[in-house]
Order: sequence, then structure tokens, then C-alpha cells
Amino acid sequence: MKLARFIVSGESEIRSGIIEESNIHEFTGDMFTSRILTGKTFSLDNVQLKAPLTPRHIIGIGRNFVGEGAPKPEVPEMPILFFKPLTTVVGPGDAVVLPLGTDDIKFESELAVIIGKEARNIDPSNIHEVIFGYTVANDLGAFNYFHPEGHWTIGKSFDTFCPLGPVIVTDFDYHSARIQSTVNGIVKQDALMERIITPIDSMIAYISRFMTLRPGDIILTGTPAGADQVRDGDIVDCYIEGIGHLQNPVVAQKS
Amino acid sequence: MKLARFIVSGESEIRSGIIEESNIHEFTGDMFTSRILTGKTFSLDNVQLKAPLTPRHIIGIGRNFVGEGAPKPEVPEMPILFFKPLTTVVGPGDAVVLPLGTDDIKFESELAVIIGKEARNIDPSNIHEVIFGYTVANDLGAFNYFHPEGHWTIGKSFDTFCPLGPVIVTDFDYHSARIQSTVNGIVKQDALMERIITPIDSMIAYISRFMTLRPGDIILTGTPAGADQVRDGDIVDCYIEGIGHLQNPVVAQKS
Repeated sequence: MKLARFIVSGESEIRSGIIEESNIHEFTGDMFTSRILTGKTFSLDNVQLKAPLTPRHIIGIGRNFVGEGAPKPEVPEMPILFFKPLTTVVGPGDAVVLPLGTDDIKFESELAVIIGKEARNIDPSNIHEVIFGYTVANDLGAFNYFHPEGHWTIGKSFDTFCPLGPVIVTDFDYHSARIQSTVNGIVKQDALMERIITPIDSMIAYISRFMTLRPGDIILTGTPAGADQVRDGDIVDCYIEGIGHLQNPVVAQKS
Repeated sequence: MKLARFIVSGESEIRSGIIEESNIHEFTGDMFTSRILTGKTFSLDNVQLKAPLTPRHIIGIGRNFVGEGAPKPEVPEMPILFFKPLTTVVGPGDAVVLPLGTDDIKFESELAVIIGKEARNIDPSNIHEVIFGYTVANDLGAFNYFHPEGHWTIGKSFDTFCPLGPVIVTDFDYHSARIQSTVNGIVKQDALMERIITPIDSMIAYISRFMTLRPGDIILTGTPAGADQVRDGDIVDCYIEGIGHLQNPVVAQKS
């Protein structure tokens, strides 16, 4: 199943829907537990997709990919984790705004895992029960705002620094999926998800040992080599095979 | 004005109210914008106070106090900031649960500032316009889970690691207020808020430069010297003059 949030051309209301071929069937109610089809169907040509959910928490993991052909390091005992605030979320086509006072901002194409059920101290072998679906994330960071003592909080937290989309795919096997990115059409990242270091099931199990995960929590699972700087006027495209393209223009903050 | 959330003895519904002397007057609607008195009044003797709000984001600042008599260092150009997830919030009297696998957990008595209006790129001189009120926070941390490269995320994020309460006070001058804590009745922290390094108005202005603050965001403003370890069976009491006592029992996680 493919889910999205969308606006019908000429309207402003954000609706939710299930995509089938070139149409989207509107539903109301809770995305995770109680989708009720309204009977209204729209052509995808006639809608604009938005961020496919409003997350509850955004949890990121650092340094979690190894290059093709390189030996995989040991899974670290303690991952590098960080939170991004909800104000970082924008949707497909929305502008990423580069803050003033820094010219070292990088994009990162990532698989985002969406939690659909409460999970506390869950075993890695049961992770499939709590994952609702997957989408593409662009985890932007302003490296000049990484604290010299190691805290990434500020650099990861600027408004618009977490585009999400274009859709949520619920039936998806990420293990051998391809993850890519381009800037202005030039390939920057191109890797297989199997090059991940801390596997996704172990990562979610680890997080569930310190915090109760709930529906709407999302986990950004790390980015392959090749993440690069973005500048005013760039178009960044993050892509995961089986989910789709998440494309965003980059603009400089005006004042 | 003093606001709280509460449960009437023998019930389970969480209500909101305004405290006057020994009574609490129930209201419905949005705490920040549309409080509507229901006409129901309860004696404080007959209710149990809960965490006074469900925050939208919890933003903490590190190393922000200087000891009495010591010269104040320069305000750092970039503060150490971190997020705590919403699953850390508990209320007065609720248990703080010590996770397995660590015996180095510290409490920290802190003034929590509650944002009441949207704020982006706000000037420090206008901060009073966006502050809704103040409460007491206990910012617990498991130091063994601070990442060796500096990330505090995991250590600050265990379930129950952010008691809040007992009430929100909207008319409050923190500048010369006393902040204290005791463990089992023994004084551990005792300082004046004026020993803060990055002033609260500068701190909020700084945060508003990278993220849009919204009603319900709370900022934990740092803790004075004396924060100490807690153990199974302890009672921690965090206190700010003019707001009140936030008392929580500490229990070890069972499995």
C-alpha cells in the first residue's frame, strides 16, 4: 500500500489518501489504525503531494553506512543518535532554506522508517510488527553549527532541514534497495541499503530500550557516502528504489 | 496566575484548572489561547496534580550555571543544546525509573520556560511576549549513555527522565529566584537563578534563530552545582521559590 497526504489543485486543505496507479483515494481518520475511505478519488495529475505525515519524534542515526567493497566495521555498542524538531519537516517540492551565517550545509538521502505501534524493549526479531512503513528523508545539516564538543543538535535542527516523501510504502523490503541522490541532475550518492552498519531491526530495538516508541515516531537510518554541500538555486533529489523521488529546491534565507 | 492539570480523587480523567488559594477552578479549551471556565471548582486536598502540560518539544541547555562567588564566564557563542523526547515527561509524585545497566544517573533541578506564542528570529528584548509561564523540571541523565564523542541524546532520553510541575506560574520574575533540590531531605542544590551564564532571553532568542518556537515548546534552562546521583528508593525534591516543589520517588527498573 502507498499512502500520501495531498492538496487538490486550487484548494488549501490537506487530505490523506491511498495511491493506486494514477489515482489517489481519499481517506479520513487515523492513518495507523482507522482509515475510512471517503469515496472521493483524484487523479495524481491534479494534486500536489505534501509531507506524508506529521511525525511525533524524528530520531536520526549518525555514521551508519560503509562504502561499497569496504569491510563492514563492528556494529557499535552505542550508536550516535540525535533528534530533529518537527519544525524541520517539509514536503516534496517545498523549499529548503539555507540559514544565514554558514556556507557548509549538506544534504543526506536516507530511508525513514515509520513506527506504527507502541514498542518498548522490543526484540529485533519482532521489529516487523511495529513498522508501519517507509518513506524517503533528506537529513540536512549545517556543519558550522555542530558544537565542537560533539553535539549536533543545532546543526540538524534548522527549519526546513527534513524534507519527507513523496509517499509512505508499507510493503517494502529495504534490505537490497538502492538509495541515491542527485544535485542539479548530477549523481552524488548511489549505494545499496545492505551497506548499512547497524541493521534497522537492531537500531529500533536499541532505541526502544530507552524510550517507548509510538505511532508517528520516525527513524532516519543513515546516509551512504557522497553527501555533499548544497547552495542557493540547487535542486536536490533523494531517491529510494521502490518508494520514489523526493525533490526540493534550495534557497538562501533572505534576512 | 497558577495553572495545573489534575485528576480528582477516584477518577481517571485529566482536567485542567486555575489554582486560587486552596481551590482549583476547572477550564476546558486550549491552555494558551482559549481557556473556558466550566464552573466546577475542586479543593486541592481532593485532587492529584499531573505534569502541567504535554510539551511539543523539550529543549535543554548544558553547563549553564556558575557557582556562588565565582566570576561569570563569557556567554558562549554556541550553547550546548539537546532535545528530550516527550516520553520522558512524568508529573509530581510519579516514579522516575532507573534503567538497567547503569548506576550513574543524576537529577538536575531546573527552571522550565514554557513558550506561548510562535517565535522566529525574535529579539531578546521581546522575549517576554512569547513566554507563557514557568514550571519546575527535573532533567535526569544517565551518564554512562552519554556518547564518548559528545552526544547526550540517549542519556537524556530514558522514559520518566523529565518530571515537570507542580504548576505553571505565569507571573513570575525568575531573575533573583532561589532554586534548590534535596534527596531524602538532604540539600543537594541551593542557588540563585542570577548565577545563570547564558541569560534566558538570549537563550530563547538564539533557539528562535534556527527553529520556529511554538506554544507548548519548553526550554530547560540549566542546573546549578550540586546535581547528584540518585538510587532506588530515593525521594528527589526539586524546588523553585515562587513555583513550588516537584517531588518524585526513584525506583529501579525491574527487568
